[in-house]
Amino acid sequence: MPFNAESALRANPPAPAQPWKGFPKYNFVGGHNDAASIPAIELAASVTSILGREGRDLATYGLQSGPQGYRPFREAIASMLNRRAGMKENQSSILVTSGSLQALSLIFDLFLDPGDVVFLEKACYGGTLSRLRARSVEYIGVELDEEGMQADALDEAIKQVKSAGKRPKMIYTIPTVQNPTGRVMSEARRRHILAVAAEHNLPIFEDDCYADLIFSGGRPPAIRALDEDGRVVYCGSFSKSIGPAIRVGFIAADWPILSRLLPLKTDGGTGAIEQMALTEYVATKFDAHVASLNQTLKIKAEAMADAIDEYFGAAAEFEKPQSGIFLWLKLPGSVDTSRLFQIAGAEGVAINPGVEWSTVEAYGKKRLRLCFANPSVNEIREGISKLADICHREFGVPQRSANIQR
Amino acid sequence: MPFNAESALRANPPAPAQPWKGFPKYNFVGGHNDAASIPAIELAASVTSILGREGRDLATYGLQSGPQGYRPFREAIASMLNRRAGMKENQSSILVTSGSLQALSLIFDLFLDPGDVVFLEKACYGGTLSRLRARSVEYIGVELDEEGMQADALDEAIKQVKSAGKRPKMIYTIPTVQNPTGRVMSEARRRHILAVAAEHNLPIFEDDCYADLIFSGGRPPAIRALDEDGRVVYCGSFSKSIGPAIRVGFIAADWPILSRLLPLKTDGGTGAIEQMALTEYVATKFDAHVASLNQTLKIKAEAMADAIDEYFGAAAEFEKPQSGIFLWLKLPGSVDTSRLFQIAGAEGVAINPGVEWSTVEAYGKKRLRLCFANPSVNEIREGISKLADICHREFGVPQRSANIQR
Repeated sequence: MPFNAESALRANPPAPAQPWKGFPKYNFVGGHNDAASIPAIELAASVTSILGREGRDLATYGLQSGPQGYRPFREAIASMLNRRAGMKENQSSILVTSGSLQALSLIFDLFLDPGDVVFLEKACYGGTLSRLRARSVEYIGVELDEEGMQADALDEAIKQVKSAGKRPKMIYTIPTVQNPTGRVMSEARRRHILAVAAEHNLPIFEDDCYADLIFSGGRPPAIRALDEDGRVVYCGSFSKSIGPAIRVGFIAADWPILSRLLPLKTDGGTGAIEQMALTEYVATKFDAHVASLNQTLKIKAEAMADAIDEYFGAAAEFEKPQSGIFLWLKLPGSVDTSRLFQIAGAEGVAINPGVEWSTVEAYGKKRLRLCFANPSVNEIREGISKLADICHREFGVPQRSANIQR
Repeated sequence: MPFNAESALRANPPAPAQPWKGFPKYNFVGGHNDAASIPAIELAASVTSILGREGRDLATYGLQSGPQGYRPFREAIASMLNRRAGMKENQSSILVTSGSLQALSLIFDLFLDPGDVVFLEKACYGGTLSRLRARSVEYIGVELDEEGMQADALDEAIKQVKSAGKRPKMIYTIPTVQNPTGRVMSEARRRHILAVAAEHNLPIFEDDCYADLIFSGGRPPAIRALDEDGRVVYCGSFSKSIGPAIRVGFIAADWPILSRLLPLKTDGGTGAIEQMALTEYVATKFDAHVASLNQTLKIKAEAMADAIDEYFGAAAEFEKPQSGIFLWLKLPGSVDTSRLFQIAGAEGVAINPGVEWSTVEAYGKKRLRLCFANPSVNEIREGISKLADICHREFGVPQRSANIQR
């Protein structure tokens, strides 16, 4: 008799997955990157070089480097952070993770109990929000301005939570190329946020996954670079700067925190060959790669901004991206982007609906995130045109559809 | 003021890690493998070949294969399982995981609530037991005989749990090269266990991580190969057959279970380059590699058995390993192997204490697991001699110490 799996599962499992059908024709979601920029030959060379020299070390867990990750890779990461983000790391303050998603999970697991309150930007990475909800942790969205998360609003929110008798537990921020708004927090604001955290004795979780993607080059110092208290736990990733199929991220933190994170990482280590592919590449070629990638992304960002201007006209509100791989778009109130997500998805245009990236439903419902890094310039134009057609048909926005305007 | 991390953590975090000090001189723990058998050049060639052809696909999550893992790799795994273990898989029934440890976590997460009861072998992999305890799941150890887990004892244990008003929820077994006993379950016993599971309508979790390491070659069919109900969820790994620093395992299951596991795998996919390293290798060279590795392991197993005979004499009880990478050793009742673990560890001899690998403390306390795959034959002899010296000094066992016998 066929086994009835459903009756054997835990209480309230998530809904089953559907078989994967391939990527949509117009792929504007999920952190996908520019295919032509992938340094495949160089990554293979890094693997070959290290495996030729140290291949025998695959016979032990963690190579000869312990649970923090392959030591030469940690050295390359520390050097990169010090050079690019003004940090003061060395191999002992780095923990290599299986993507920054594992970093998120580990850090949340270490600090948060159900009922705790986390403060983050009002618009925020959906994977962070879903992980917090899964832990029954409450989150409060703080307003953003052009300098990033507002420090006074943060201070006020923490005080309110305290006076309501709840437990403020962590400030989570994406200060550099904020996801989804693209904002880059000013250095002054970083210092102000640090001061608020110190006043309330809270840790800061600085998620810096997109920080290498500022088109003009340069960036403010990391908040962790300005932190003299050991209050900031930092994470980064190579998903955005190299490619998301490579599942390698990292945490930088002082030992009192890192030593507490390590026992929670029960995966037997992050993949050795994945780390080897990046080690020599990050040490020698990363800066040039990122500079070139940023030029490509800038062209695609402009193509998307132009296409939205052309096909949506005044119906669309957005800031032209100066960094990152996405554009945060606001449409008129008649549009429900969660419905748009369903309808457009069925017609081959994949978007991230705003409610998944927002702490406030009414704010998110009018907004969507569009990733411009993976599609070609032509696909961007075609996809945005199609999206405008769908919006016109379903929501009457823009008032004249793209086909009519052409 | 320095941030006080301790006061900011969740309730009851695990104890902090100590900085890693390198591997012990005599490394008899943890699934480490034979360094000279690592096929480093061939793994690098597999990466180079695939990256040269499909490197652009690193720009998207999951390559062009969706969340189950790189499709050519899943095809290679299915073919290997069908060829070696009599299974009937194809790429759609395989989920690539970040080591078999992730497979354990996902499967336990899907099926188990706190208070559920899992049935497993009386001596069992410590990582399974710790994961179940962390979920507040109860486990019951079933007696083993020379054919593996006793089916009648299993049936009896399930009935007792039911009549106590508890929830039997899963049978977990390591039927092929059982960890730590090395037993290989007979085909008849596999069918009997399946029948017991069917009678009680329970799923079976078949953990087959060591199954390729039978020195004489050949193996009984997987329990999943004999299952016509879709009751068995299966996991395997390349940690033991290739090397543990490579973090790639896999699950084989029917779609009603696989589709439920996928939403729990929130890691953005298993590392692409790690999968690429194995894809061509597993498809073309795996069988020859494993045959050669088994010859090496057989020599080391004999060296360890001989050394124990020589240095412990009649004080040690064990079966000479015919498979796997470890030996399950029983010492007289005056020995407490948890204390031995501490003392020997401080003197450079690392062992796995039996209580961590047992469901019954009194049974485990007299036993230890020794892994013979990583040390050289000389290191095996020296380490076992040293372990005998320590046992003599601390516990009076063996009665005459190794130094005296020589």
